[in-house]
Amino acid sequence: MSGTTRQQSWKIQTELPVEYEIVETHDLLNPGNPDLLTVPGGGRGTGTRLVILDHSVDELYGAKIRTYFSENDVPVDYLTLPGSEENKSIERVLEVVNKLNEVGTNRLSSPPIVIGGGVVADVVGLAASLYRRGIPFVRVPTTLLGQVDVSVAAKSGINYGGYRNRLGAYTPPPRTLIDRSFLATVPRRQLRNGMGEIFKMALIKDLRLFELLEEYGAELIEARFQDPGPGEGPAAAVADEVIGRAIAGMAEELQPNLWEKDLQRSVDYGHSFSPLVEMRALPELLHGEAVAMDCVFSALLAAGRGLIDDDQFTRIVAVARRMGLAPSHPLFCDVELVLEGLADTVLHRDGKQNLPILTAIGEVCFLNDVSEDEIERACAGMGRLLGTGAGRAGQRVGADR
Amino acid sequence: MSGTTRQQSWKIQTELPVEYEIVETHDLLNPGNPDLLTVPGGGRGTGTRLVILDHSVDELYGAKIRTYFSENDVPVDYLTLPGSEENKSIERVLEVVNKLNEVGTNRLSSPPIVIGGGVVADVVGLAASLYRRGIPFVRVPTTLLGQVDVSVAAKSGINYGGYRNRLGAYTPPPRTLIDRSFLATVPRRQLRNGMGEIFKMALIKDLRLFELLEEYGAELIEARFQDPGPGEGPAAAVADEVIGRAIAGMAEELQPNLWEKDLQRSVDYGHSFSPLVEMRALPELLHGEAVAMDCVFSALLAAGRGLIDDDQFTRIVAVARRMGLAPSHPLFCDVELVLEGLADTVLHRDGKQNLPILTAIGEVCFLNDVSEDEIERACAGMGRLLGTGAGRAGQRVGADR
Ligand SMILES: NC(=O)c1ccc[n+]([C@@H]2O[C@H](COP(=O)([O-])OP(=O)(O)OC[C@H]3O[C@@H](n4cnc5c(N)ncnc54)[C@H](O)[C@@H]3O)[C@@H](O)[C@H]2O)c1
Ligand SMILES: NC(=O)c1ccc[n+]([C@@H]2O[C@H](COP(=O)([O-])OP(=O)(O)OC[C@H]3O[C@@H](n4cnc5c(N)ncnc54)[C@H](O)[C@@H]3O)[C@@H](O)[C@H]2O)c1
Ligand SMILES: [Zn+2]
Ligand SMILES: [Zn+2]
Repeated sequence: MSGTTRQQSWKIQTELPVEYEIVETHDLLNPGNPDLLTVPGGGRGTGTRLVILDHSVDELYGAKIRTYFSENDVPVDYLTLPGSEENKSIERVLEVVNKLNEVGTNRLSSPPIVIGGGVVADVVGLAASLYRRGIPFVRVPTTLLGQVDVSVAAKSGINYGGYRNRLGAYTPPPRTLIDRSFLATVPRRQLRNGMGEIFKMALIKDLRLFELLEEYGAELIEARFQDPGPGEGPAAAVADEVIGRAIAGMAEELQPNLWEKDLQRSVDYGHSFSPLVEMRALPELLHGEAVAMDCVFSALLAAGRGLIDDDQFTRIVAVARRMGLAPSHPLFCDVELVLEGLADTVLHRDGKQNLPILTAIGEVCFLNDVSEDEIERACAGMGRLLGTGAGRAGQRVGADR
Repeated sequence: MSGTTRQQSWKIQTELPVEYEIVETHDLLNPGNPDLLTVPGGGRGTGTRLVILDHSVDELYGAKIRTYFSENDVPVDYLTLPGSEENKSIERVLEVVNKLNEVGTNRLSSPPIVIGGGVVADVVGLAASLYRRGIPFVRVPTTLLGQVDVSVAAKSGINYGGYRNRLGAYTPPPRTLIDRSFLATVPRRQLRNGMGEIFKMALIKDLRLFELLEEYGAELIEARFQDPGPGEGPAAAVADEVIGRAIAGMAEELQPNLWEKDLQRSVDYGHSFSPLVEMRALPELLHGEAVAMDCVFSALLAAGRGLIDDDQFTRIVAVARRMGLAPSHPLFCDVELVLEGLADTVLHRDGKQNLPILTAIGEVCFLNDVSEDEIERACAGMGRLLGTGAGRAGQRVGADR
């Protein structure tokens, strides 16, 4: 444009290439394994690296981690942060930022390393995304939920103002390392929690994964996904397949829609009504537990429309229960709360319901016309599932979590 | 990958297309002008729109702005925020977030509108970037610095821990609207401040722009970039050309390097030593004032190496002074502080100086071997410029800001 005409205008058009990898590794904390040292892009980087540890990880693996870095002669500094949902806060993000300032982190070549569950991964992810408007980091998820779900995520988020993930960013770490052996120390309830997300993935797109959960889910939790002794539990190959299918499914869904330009996302299954319930129930419900309940709630909506039949519904509830995931909770019977949760989800989906709803086990469609009546009936259905074993009738068999 | 092999890995590769525009408009607050209503992408959007006003803009234009939206029957809510550097804080960002929550902002179709200087633009820009992990917004810069520099920016930033723009993001608003008539009320010191960035742009790549500043700079400030009466001041075409060349120059530099993957950025000229000085001098120095001083400091480095000659250096200092921009400040004579500022800049440039240095008026090269000695000599040079008119010798003629 000439500089002297009136009503000038300028346009900027470009593309940001994004690439990141999730790599399985074994014996990550063995000083001979270089995976934790390598800076994304290669080499060992420069300057001091900040290593952020989940507090449980620090307790259980702290000595090993410190030996790893000192034997490898890499200058590091440590910050330990608590896990659990109430710590996904702006205050924790700023704590990481303060420490990055203190350490004097470079823009590119001393990427911080976060080792822990989804909460510290999200907190550090957002801090790294904001710091100097974005620095790379390395993510090492140590919970099941972290390994099958957070591991693939490009996004980070923190809770704010009573809303889940209200603040966040889309800035994936170039590198995520998965070592299944961390799961050996994860409490069983936390493993079931991770199963909640695998359950979701199975329901929306992977019948084979659903069948694996049906057959081996409970045993995998029992064995904490570790290699069994001779003649014991499911083979290591089953643990690998379950984790691998969950990651691959997630990667397949994210790759074409990383920035969620398309607001019809099947991976939002289990995440339509649960966010507000989860926040209200804090700290009682874990994320994956709430997700599993939302999966059941949404299956009730599907059953109500005849999109799935009673047998399919019963089978879904049975798998959840078998893995020790309660299918229902009193808050899911509270019509007003569920409607309020849906209203915020609609804002998040820019004015549309875009509800992923099952048409079979392993298949979804999207609905935009779910009525208050249908929600009310589903809430009633959740009432019948409270503390029952059968998932249909009214007989109490006690909570099985 | 098969799900049953060991050492699995997954890679996600994609591209984020980014497009945004800067549009000049006239009489923006005339209810007949639809520019403020249109949602990026077209149409009027849905839901309530949050309009964030700089406090001076609210004082001066608040009534007009309220009339504009009410006459157009658009549901809006208002938030007024203070300008000036100390308000580029996380607290202000969260204030915007709280208000977005209160208004119930949609993910896409009710983009907030920010009308004000660079400070509120940065604060709202970061809030929008974080909210629901990113919502669009519309930017209306009302200061000269806002119109020539912030207008083109993809990034937002806030100060934290005593560091300028320590936290931020790269998420440009799809639409920025420029109406030169806002400048009619901008205090002259703020106009000079904006001239600081135009001065930088001229020095690094636009001799013609430098000559325009030499000839018309002072008069443009005097006339506040407004259309002159007959026979008065420089023509409107000059104001348009100066603003237009500054914007076009910036757009040209940003487009191929929006995410700053290349850390050799000529637009970083004037921004190598100034960030820390500016923060230490708060609230005394404005951003553009500090930038202009850094331009002179860097020119001293160039002159010290013989990359530019004495005449060029004198001409540079003279243009700054003519526009009422002081070429020096006592903090720029403080070798230790300047070295500390450079050290943080080196971290920001990932371990390299990458100092843009003039080789002529309108041309830069990059240096990576500037020594402490050279810095010391430049600091001494800045001492000689303190309060002198000539820019060379030691005679005091008083500060001219
Ligand atoms: N960014 C994303 O896209 C994304 C995706 C899915 C989930 N998430 C988030 O992840 C969070 C949940 O993650 P989580 O389930 O890992 O919770 P968490 O981080 O709170 O970890 C659960 C508990 O396990 C402990 N722990 C971690 N590793 C351990 C180990 N190896 N041994 C023993 N204890 C260990 C933690 O200290 C914590 O007490 C949620 O906030 C959710 O929103 C984010
Ligand atoms: N995001 C970016 O890439 C980018 C680029 C350049 C500068 N910036 C930032 O911009 C900030 C400086 O912006 P600024 O110079 O506009 O400062 P500012 O926002 O503080 O505005 C300066 C003053 O002018 C007042 N004002 C605004 N519009 C007015 C009007 N029309 N009439 C009268 N008064 C008015 C404000 O209230 C304030 O007091 C710095 O923090 C700088 O870092 C950001
Ligand atoms: Zn989830
Ligand atoms: Zn600047």
